[in-house]
Amino acid sequence: MLRRRPSKEILAGESADVYFARAEEILRREGLDPLVTMEVFGRADAVLCGIDEAKILIAHVLEHAAPDEVSVEALDDGDTIGPKEIVLRIRARYRQFGLYETAVLGMMAQATGWATAARECVTAAAPQPVISFGARHVHPDVSDTLDYAAIVGGCVGASTPAGARLAGLAPTGTMPHSLVLIFGDTVKAAEAFDRDLGPDVPRIVLVDTFRDEAEEALRVAEALGDRLYGIRLDTPAERGRVTADLVTEVRARLDQAGYSGVRIIVSGGLDPERIRYFKEHGAQVDSFAVGSYISGASPVDFTGDIKEIDGRPIAKRGRIPGLTASPRLKPVDLPTWRAT
Amino acid sequence: MLRRRPSKEILAGESADVYFARAEEILRREGLDPLVTMEVFGRADAVLCGIDEAKILIAHVLEHAAPDEVSVEALDDGDTIGPKEIVLRIRARYRQFGLYETAVLGMMAQATGWATAARECVTAAAPQPVISFGARHVHPDVSDTLDYAAIVGGCVGASTPAGARLAGLAPTGTMPHSLVLIFGDTVKAAEAFDRDLGPDVPRIVLVDTFRDEAEEALRVAEALGDRLYGIRLDTPAERGRVTADLVTEVRARLDQAGYSGVRIIVSGGLDPERIRYFKEHGAQVDSFAVGSYISGASPVDFTGDIKEIDGRPIAKRGRIPGLTASPRLKPVDLPTWRAT
Amino acid sequence: MLRRRPSKEILAGESADVYFARAEEILRREGLDPLVTMEVFGRADAVLCGIDEAKILIAHVLEHAAPDEVSVEALDDGDTIGPKEIVLRIRARYRQFGLYETAVLGMMAQATGWATAARECVTAAAPQPVISFGARHVHPDVSDTLDYAAIVGGCVGASTPAGARLAGLAPTGTMPHSLVLIFGDTVKAAEAFDRDLGPDVPRIVLVDTFRDEAEEALRVAEALGDRLYGIRLDTPAERGRVTADLVTEVRARLDQAGYSGVRIIVSGGLDPERIRYFKEHGAQVDSFAVGSYISGASPVDFTGDIKEIDGRPIAKRGRIPGLTASPRLKPVDLPTWRAT
Amino acid sequence: MLRRRPSKEILAGESADVYFARAEEILRREGLDPLVTMEVFGRADAVLCGIDEAKILIAHVLEHAAPDEVSVEALDDGDTIGPKEIVLRIRARYRQFGLYETAVLGMMAQATGWATAARECVTAAAPQPVISFGARHVHPDVSDTLDYAAIVGGCVGASTPAGARLAGLAPTGTMPHSLVLIFGDTVKAAEAFDRDLGPDVPRIVLVDTFRDEAEEALRVAEALGDRLYGIRLDTPAERGRVTADLVTEVRARLDQAGYSGVRIIVSGGLDPERIRYFKEHGAQVDSFAVGSYISGASPVDFTGDIKEIDGRPIAKRGRIPGLTASPRLKPVDLPTWRAT
Amino acid sequence: MLRRRPSKEILAGESADVYFARAEEILRREGLDPLVTMEVFGRADAVLCGIDEAKILIAHVLEHAAPDEVSVEALDDGDTIGPKEIVLRIRARYRQFGLYETAVLGMMAQATGWATAARECVTAAAPQPVISFGARHVHPDVSDTLDYAAIVGGCVGASTPAGARLAGLAPTGTMPHSLVLIFGDTVKAAEAFDRDLGPDVPRIVLVDTFRDEAEEALRVAEALGDRLYGIRLDTPAERGRVTADLVTEVRARLDQAGYSGVRIIVSGGLDPERIRYFKEHGAQVDSFAVGSYISGASPVDFTGDIKEIDGRPIAKRGRIPGLTASPRLKPVDLPTWRAT
Amino acid sequence: MLRRRPSKEILAGESADVYFARAEEILRREGLDPLVTMEVFGRADAVLCGIDEAKILIAHVLEHAAPDEVSVEALDDGDTIGPKEIVLRIRARYRQFGLYETAVLGMMAQATGWATAARECVTAAAPQPVISFGARHVHPDVSDTLDYAAIVGGCVGASTPAGARLAGLAPTGTMPHSLVLIFGDTVKAAEAFDRDLGPDVPRIVLVDTFRDEAEEALRVAEALGDRLYGIRLDTPAERGRVTADLVTEVRARLDQAGYSGVRIIVSGGLDPERIRYFKEHGAQVDSFAVGSYISGASPVDFTGDIKEIDGRPIAKRGRIPGLTASPRLKPVDLPTWRAT
Repeated sequence: MLRRRPSKEILAGESADVYFARAEEILRREGLDPLVTMEVFGRADAVLCGIDEAKILIAHVLEHAAPDEVSVEALDDGDTIGPKEIVLRIRARYRQFGLYETAVLGMMAQATGWATAARECVTAAAPQPVISFGARHVHPDVSDTLDYAAIVGGCVGASTPAGARLAGLAPTGTMPHSLVLIFGDTVKAAEAFDRDLGPDVPRIVLVDTFRDEAEEALRVAEALGDRLYGIRLDTPAERGRVTADLVTEVRARLDQAGYSGVRIIVSGGLDPERIRYFKEHGAQVDSFAVGSYISGASPVDFTGDIKEIDGRPIAKRGRIPGLTASPRLKPVDLPTWRAT
Repeated sequence: MLRRRPSKEILAGESADVYFARAEEILRREGLDPLVTMEVFGRADAVLCGIDEAKILIAHVLEHAAPDEVSVEALDDGDTIGPKEIVLRIRARYRQFGLYETAVLGMMAQATGWATAARECVTAAAPQPVISFGARHVHPDVSDTLDYAAIVGGCVGASTPAGARLAGLAPTGTMPHSLVLIFGDTVKAAEAFDRDLGPDVPRIVLVDTFRDEAEEALRVAEALGDRLYGIRLDTPAERGRVTADLVTEVRARLDQAGYSGVRIIVSGGLDPERIRYFKEHGAQVDSFAVGSYISGASPVDFTGDIKEIDGRPIAKRGRIPGLTASPRLKPVDLPTWRAT
Repeated sequence: MLRRRPSKEILAGESADVYFARAEEILRREGLDPLVTMEVFGRADAVLCGIDEAKILIAHVLEHAAPDEVSVEALDDGDTIGPKEIVLRIRARYRQFGLYETAVLGMMAQATGWATAARECVTAAAPQPVISFGARHVHPDVSDTLDYAAIVGGCVGASTPAGARLAGLAPTGTMPHSLVLIFGDTVKAAEAFDRDLGPDVPRIVLVDTFRDEAEEALRVAEALGDRLYGIRLDTPAERGRVTADLVTEVRARLDQAGYSGVRIIVSGGLDPERIRYFKEHGAQVDSFAVGSYISGASPVDFTGDIKEIDGRPIAKRGRIPGLTASPRLKPVDLPTWRAT
Repeated sequence: MLRRRPSKEILAGESADVYFARAEEILRREGLDPLVTMEVFGRADAVLCGIDEAKILIAHVLEHAAPDEVSVEALDDGDTIGPKEIVLRIRARYRQFGLYETAVLGMMAQATGWATAARECVTAAAPQPVISFGARHVHPDVSDTLDYAAIVGGCVGASTPAGARLAGLAPTGTMPHSLVLIFGDTVKAAEAFDRDLGPDVPRIVLVDTFRDEAEEALRVAEALGDRLYGIRLDTPAERGRVTADLVTEVRARLDQAGYSGVRIIVSGGLDPERIRYFKEHGAQVDSFAVGSYISGASPVDFTGDIKEIDGRPIAKRGRIPGLTASPRLKPVDLPTWRAT
Repeated sequence: MLRRRPSKEILAGESADVYFARAEEILRREGLDPLVTMEVFGRADAVLCGIDEAKILIAHVLEHAAPDEVSVEALDDGDTIGPKEIVLRIRARYRQFGLYETAVLGMMAQATGWATAARECVTAAAPQPVISFGARHVHPDVSDTLDYAAIVGGCVGASTPAGARLAGLAPTGTMPHSLVLIFGDTVKAAEAFDRDLGPDVPRIVLVDTFRDEAEEALRVAEALGDRLYGIRLDTPAERGRVTADLVTEVRARLDQAGYSGVRIIVSGGLDPERIRYFKEHGAQVDSFAVGSYISGASPVDFTGDIKEIDGRPIAKRGRIPGLTASPRLKPVDLPTWRAT
Repeated sequence: MLRRRPSKEILAGESADVYFARAEEILRREGLDPLVTMEVFGRADAVLCGIDEAKILIAHVLEHAAPDEVSVEALDDGDTIGPKEIVLRIRARYRQFGLYETAVLGMMAQATGWATAARECVTAAAPQPVISFGARHVHPDVSDTLDYAAIVGGCVGASTPAGARLAGLAPTGTMPHSLVLIFGDTVKAAEAFDRDLGPDVPRIVLVDTFRDEAEEALRVAEALGDRLYGIRLDTPAERGRVTADLVTEVRARLDQAGYSGVRIIVSGGLDPERIRYFKEHGAQVDSFAVGSYISGASPVDFTGDIKEIDGRPIAKRGRIPGLTASPRLKPVDLPTWRAT
């Protein structure tokens, strides 16, 4: 489950802060290219993500370096990290990799933010599973990364084909409100869904488009019978959101009508606090679909510090010179990652 | 100043929520393809951004639609919008564009979040300018979009070549701490900078790497003389961040030594509140460089609602059927945007 | 609009604090019965209510007093009063009325609490009217008093026949959920309501019993046509209460279907803050039905102080001896009130 | 200890919400009278009260029902209940009892509110006893109900003859300030009290009317000697209320003068928090007299839901159809309650 | 109104921080004694006090300096100052005055804290006067300084002979509780006070020692007649402190008895907020006696910075080298102050 | 370690509240001089201080009393006391000591406030030591008392010679910023310090005057070698105060350079919370120097109550007559204290 080769824009340094390009130019003109050790750390407790993609980039940019002048150590996607813990250490000629600091940090910053938020939801919901479907809140160029990070954080599924492929899973989803609107009736839409899609797609029907949720859930259950996998409750804020009482009532009415096998999936403004609210009120939710809490998570700030130059410990003011003791770091085999 | 043609992954629907692909499949099998009107609105007061990129995508996906069955109306990048205000209205056969709803919303969600956060900083700093340099907090595939959005929000510059190009400007930046560390002395690094780069690059020197900021500022000013454009203060949190008093003192010491022309650029954990702190304490900052407040801004949630099907008003529960009065919308000339 | 003759239990002193009966016994044995002046005041800004009922009681208990030894001055039901303002002053032989202090204070305490809470709702809702229907929260022996007080506080209607009669109005109400449940369908219940009741009863139909409120509102409007006066929204807390968005949507859907004459009555946990929420969000509520905020209002504490005995100013510690300047007090004509 | 037969106004439905009368009229005209089951529950943790009075009312209104069509189950006055717990279940023809829902709920709502507030005070004060004397804050028609509820909540006494009779106790009380004012001296009033009342009335003397409480307590103790049961401290807010220090000082001064048998009763704005304040500061209060905290308690909201019609489970939206498991309910023998 | 010559301990540097003595020793051994300019500023908005005493000290320590090498500029006791405003500037040989920095700062720190707190009370009470009597909270060696500072802050009187003398006033006071306790009766104590003290001492009698304040106030007024200047209310916290209602009641009872000329002085835990409470509640207090709010005020932190050495601007990090523009400073004539 | 003989101003009653002098005059004229017992207590949990100085004063003022009419019991400096605990009990003729109540209370009030604040810092810092240097915030006449109280509270050192002498210690201190400014360089100042002062003075050098603290610390360590005892960090607020990270970095850089024996002393706005911040962040501070938190502590309010007169228990209102059980009090041998 891994992201592909870096784009040619990234390799060209187009996404680098310009001052790295200037530093490269100055050092070239001055004929300087020391052997430096850079350490990278984050600023918060987090679930690390994006570092595997960064390893691929580093493996490419250091492709032509002298082997004895290069060593890379790192943690892995999915590792839990603490504030200021070193997650990556690169030893190489500065001009070979300095330009890519922005890209490396950026790959980790967003993905780690997303994976960490996903983990919070997953922890709140356990043992019930969480699905991520926040693609609509991020640029389509990174929606696959979002989905991958959500799964690294513990989600059991995500909603885009590209993201699912990156994570080695099938995408997850129900039906959009637009489908129900076009059919003009929830049951008709459910029946077409059931008629037209392959048996591998679980029949999960959205029941809040036109009528009362409890009423629609029963109508759909009658129409699809055993083939109905579950119903999704997504009551809009204008109608008071999905409440724990609604879940309990729908569950009871389905059970009373003999449909105790039909699962209830809840979505709509979920976050860890709201997930806990459902669980504390005893609402039997079978799975939670989370959007903007994960996709809107702020990036985790990562920083790269030069700590050794040509073997001498050094550091800017405010930091401690020399390598940081980091027993969890593992050597990164660059050829393997280059071949990914 | 515009983003390019959509990637083939986007056009292939790889970044779409899978349920749109399923809806497409069902409608195709059922032989349905109604003429629908979809309206898109955001959930907050915001500076709209990403809609111009969305127009290009829409122009491409509707390329082969019958002209009399298509109309698109929209606002523009940079417009100030209110909650629930309609920013985009598409009238077309549903199957021609339904699959791209995720991509369209995603383009606007992140960019609008960034532009809005940038505007807050710009407003707080005015009349002093703001520069955005948050590329290190986002994936390199979207760092150009971040920079573009920051400039739409009012920043006068951004730090990546790709982002600057998108916004039609030259990238902005000073020098990294790593350069100073490699030279081992701020003045030596500054002299190399001055010696090696073309005259179009303003000489802005970072003065907090090794020694006291006030001391270094004076040493650099003596070394570069009139050629010194400004100094950047970026005192790390470990040393108490940049304070208003530090700015005032450095300004006073530079002035007393005859360097009143040297500008002071401040960076390090800035947000609108911190910017106002400097201004309220009378610190004469010449420009503010903002990172994670802009790059870490949460996306603004956008929603697409079908409001008419084959001419009949319709809406899901919680919404009002039919078109929303939206006098600010302007027709979008699709061929023009396709040609961008 | 006035309450009846005091019950024989009240006149017998059964509802008096026992220490007043003891004081009466002691004074009788000691042969003391001074001419005293008692002043009564409340502890809060309030809408005075219950004092007219108290006047009737006082008129009865002082029936056989020597006319020159009796004077009563008072304010009226509906007057706005301030903390510590004198609302009632009785000058008479102490043993003639001392025993009734508890009853007099009690009549005013609850009714003033209710009228004051009603006024707060009325002020928040103006110009839209407020109806009180809190009878279910108070003992049936005082539900008429509650209704009367709510109307003194500005409500345009109340729900019990006894209360309405006391206030000189017809009672107000719609239909209970039980009626809809028995008919098994909102429209059938509405049709029976329309068929069976006289034309003086406005057709207001409850629309949240079985199905979505917007759907039912349209069904009822179609069934009753012009005869439908209004619909009542009373969505239970389990379904997220009535929201401003629901009102706006139902209003829009009714208007789009040509039923702009159908009024919207809202109920369910209303208080001044919730009423203001509807108005601030522009929800076009035609009238508000308030229950427990009025019926559950705490009594306003009233106190009776003896301020003169046989012409000499006196007071207990903490109070100022002698009569309090009270220009708003008006003489009470006891024979008239006795005849009520 | 039970309330009497319902008044003829209650039996005539005068205190019912008018919509119940209308429902009755409609059902009569439509020839409908199904066998329904109604369940009643409250909304809060509470001490249940008023349900015994409700049983008498129900016993009367169902007097002529066919025995096999009637069953009533209920909890009892004094039971501790939780939110949404069923406290009463009636199965009967709807038209036989529907009209009395308002009265039944109202009997329970106020009394339960009062009993619950009393329980809070009793718990805070234990093992010292609490007396309720809030009659002056409620209408004299319900002051007996208030006193009864306070005793159900755990108070050892209440102040009105009617209330005490309902609870099977003698009323409790000291002397009013007016008695002291008429005698012009606390000691003279205390001596008359002692001279004129039977030995069954405990001599409790109010000591804050004219002079310092400690001074008066000693004067009264000297005057009445062993016959003095206790003194009451009721310092007005204008003089800083009764404080824990005042109690401690009066206790110490009484003890020093040899009057350690004289009890101290405290009143004046007491609530559970204030009672705890006395106990936490070690003030030796012998009993607490509570007024408006109990009498001003808001009613507890009770709701009646129809859950079965002619044997079929049913419920309005938001509730779960069918009977609620309620193992604590006990059958109510209607003839016995009718004979009360 | 001025403090005396500095003590010999102060002149000997006994109260100096020891590092100043060491600096002096080092400079002496190194043969250094530059001409320096020191500026002193405070850290808060304040009423400056203690600076006049500091001028006397400085005048003494610079007695033998070469006149052309000495200049002192300063503000005065009673001046209102802002944060970081220069209040004192000394130009002299460092070794002549460096040792006295601790003493100079200390004289100003405490006195300025006290004067500022006094000013807050005076502002709250205006136009009614404030008296300071906090001597019991400070060491007797500085109680005169406290009283002086309170008067500089606007108090009309203070309670110690030494303090009053320093401020050029007669001391102010009433009588202690101990006097009343010894006489065993407030009236007897008041009569002795009246009999034994000269006519210049206003007869202000404390009325809360044994009995109710209102009762005692009237007894004292009857006993002393026109000779009674005022009564002091000082109800202890154990009895609920002096309340606005108590003042109003005592005022009313005195007026009703014909003693409208008797003033009311209030004491006991007063601070600006409590003073405003009396005024907002309309209590007619004639003067306020404040203790610990003034005497317990924290010192205002003053700092001395060297800003010029032998004519060159200099400063430590964090400060701006060279003299601060300070147009309010006035030259200090040292011989005059030496002669004080 | 004891304070000297009371000053003649104190013995003359100059620092007494004037009403004690008046009481003395009245009693003299009336020929009254009862044998009274006064008890003194504080109002807060505290570390008692100043009572030993008060014993000396009392020993002097009671010098000529008849031995059988005098007894004094007390606690000692350094005892931990609770609110209202008796700390001093004097039995003597009133006129012999009444005048000194103000002085006695004042000696304890300030010193106890200071000692208590010192104890809080000491507790927060343990096992690292605390030094007090707040002399600059108090009048030089009491700076010795401040230092003594700080040491009673647990500080290991204080900064004035007079204070240190009182506590039987040598004064503690480093060097002032002014010394560094005069030498123009931290290293030059340090070298002169080292050259000119005796070996008993530990070489502690201030390192924040001109350059970065870490840089200066290393320069000073190189210059003084093993003779350097420690460095003091006192970064001004204008530069972000001393942070835990700064301490950690300076420690690491000193250790890396082989100077692990050099201690780090921190000062600048320290209080218990800030001290805990350093410890919780793992900053290895070797000692803390506290200024205004101790010197600016508010006095603890002490009160003297007469509880017995000529053998009879008595008290003013609000207090309990007679002696308070106080088993911790110990007899004070007056001749011994007089001889101090």
